[in-house]
Amino acid sequence: MKIAIQGELGSFSHEAAGKMLPRAKVVPCARSAEVFDRVASGGVQAAVIPIENSLAGSVAEHFDLLLARDVFIHREFHLRIRHNLIAPPGVKPNAVRRVFSHPVALDQCRNFFRTYPQVQALPFYDTAGSVRHIIEDGLRDAAAIAPKQAATQYGGRVLLAGIEDDQQNYTRFLLLSRSKKIGPGANKTSIGFALKNTPGVLFKALSVFALRDIDLSKIESRPLRGHPWEYVFFADILRGDDETARNALRHLAEIAEFVKVLGVYPAAASRPR
Amino acid sequence: MKIAIQGELGSFSHEAAGKMLPRAKVVPCARSAEVFDRVASGGVQAAVIPIENSLAGSVAEHFDLLLARDVFIHREFHLRIRHNLIAPPGVKPNAVRRVFSHPVALDQCRNFFRTYPQVQALPFYDTAGSVRHIIEDGLRDAAAIAPKQAATQYGGRVLLAGIEDDQQNYTRFLLLSRSKKIGPGANKTSIGFALKNTPGVLFKALSVFALRDIDLSKIESRPLRGHPWEYVFFADILRGDDETARNALRHLAEIAEFVKVLGVYPAAASRPR
Repeated sequence: MKIAIQGELGSFSHEAAGKMLPRAKVVPCARSAEVFDRVASGGVQAAVIPIENSLAGSVAEHFDLLLARDVFIHREFHLRIRHNLIAPPGVKPNAVRRVFSHPVALDQCRNFFRTYPQVQALPFYDTAGSVRHIIEDGLRDAAAIAPKQAATQYGGRVLLAGIEDDQQNYTRFLLLSRSKKIGPGANKTSIGFALKNTPGVLFKALSVFALRDIDLSKIESRPLRGHPWEYVFFADILRGDDETARNALRHLAEIAEFVKVLGVYPAAASRPR
Repeated sequence: MKIAIQGELGSFSHEAAGKMLPRAKVVPCARSAEVFDRVASGGVQAAVIPIENSLAGSVAEHFDLLLARDVFIHREFHLRIRHNLIAPPGVKPNAVRRVFSHPVALDQCRNFFRTYPQVQALPFYDTAGSVRHIIEDGLRDAAAIAPKQAATQYGGRVLLAGIEDDQQNYTRFLLLSRSKKIGPGANKTSIGFALKNTPGVLFKALSVFALRDIDLSKIESRPLRGHPWEYVFFADILRGDDETARNALRHLAEIAEFVKVLGVYPAAASRPR
């Protein structure tokens, strides 16, 4: 089975894909649109994509693509984001003077740089790519901050594990495929819907759930691409494909410009309270 | 007057600051937290920060900082994001073989790379920084994709203007200061509020506006930092500081864990329909 991810091998998406489907072959794609297109066209059986991070927020482009492409969510998974200091083999910890990583990862490891003031933080466009860079270029005074998966992928050595400042750092990943078949235990539904920008319309839209005692675990508004001043909403409702949920969605369709069910799947229990 | 921005001189934040306060001195800060701290401590009089982009979505960290820091929104501004091909002086268009920029900017200029297939796209951590890089290193076969402001800042030459694929590319910027004095013409209020995760609570919260015919232009939920499974909501209401709005916010405070008014300011009219 082939699953597509966005970004390089050794990335957090690769790590999440390995946890969700340990035996699948991971196909890295440069762009997110390519990931979705490969799933929709059947070139790969599935994809694993990040949708939101507890510190950095939503991946807006992936919400847009869920709406635009013919794919369906089948599972969700919360990956604890652990940053590691990774060096080329043979490089000793006290030889490290430069540390490369994506600016967001560097910023999430500020305590590390405070503890080692002789070490310079250097921004790089990608976390896993920074490990490949220091190893391919054979740098002897450099390390990178990246997922553990990147050390495995490129033959680096983890000098320090878990150097992120905030341990409440999770990314929610989704497993997508072309099939719309709903699996067992599905108790969560993700939807996208558009509303005309008229007073109170969101209140009316939410009433279809409140009046049926259906709880929402997330709601978010996004400008509709190409239509400034029109909004699309993304919501997760804590309900599977039962009659009450179907009634609520039919009621919502009376109010909304359009409603798209993005997936019906089991809610992940792995993120700790 | 000094205003802080996050990022390098020549960035889109610099461009927005120049449009909002043409005569102010711009103080670049490496990190967003530093921008907010400088405003809160009085080290600068104001700051200009991006809060959402029409394609890339919200800047989650800035929502968190608006909630955490003692600052107040006084104005908003929609900047049209125009990407430009910028080269060192004397470099001819047909000599360009490599183009550096932030991956997001590279991805927003795909038509350019399709038109010039001999040109290689190279990711760099920052748009304005990529202009500084090619000029400081005196590269003769390279250009960068960046705001026009970066050409002015570092002495580059704009070879091609407006090479972004999607012209519906806007970033909304906010002007922050420490003062809570509400200026004339304020007809928009930004708030943050937290809700207990109980069924229907968001519906109840929105009822305080719907029952008073107050319209919302935006709503977004974010995980509350350090409290997994608790959510904070950010909303913009199309109303200034009048009695109806004050009643609605008092009513909201009965339902919410907390309510913070992030600013009351005139709604920008500049973004075209």
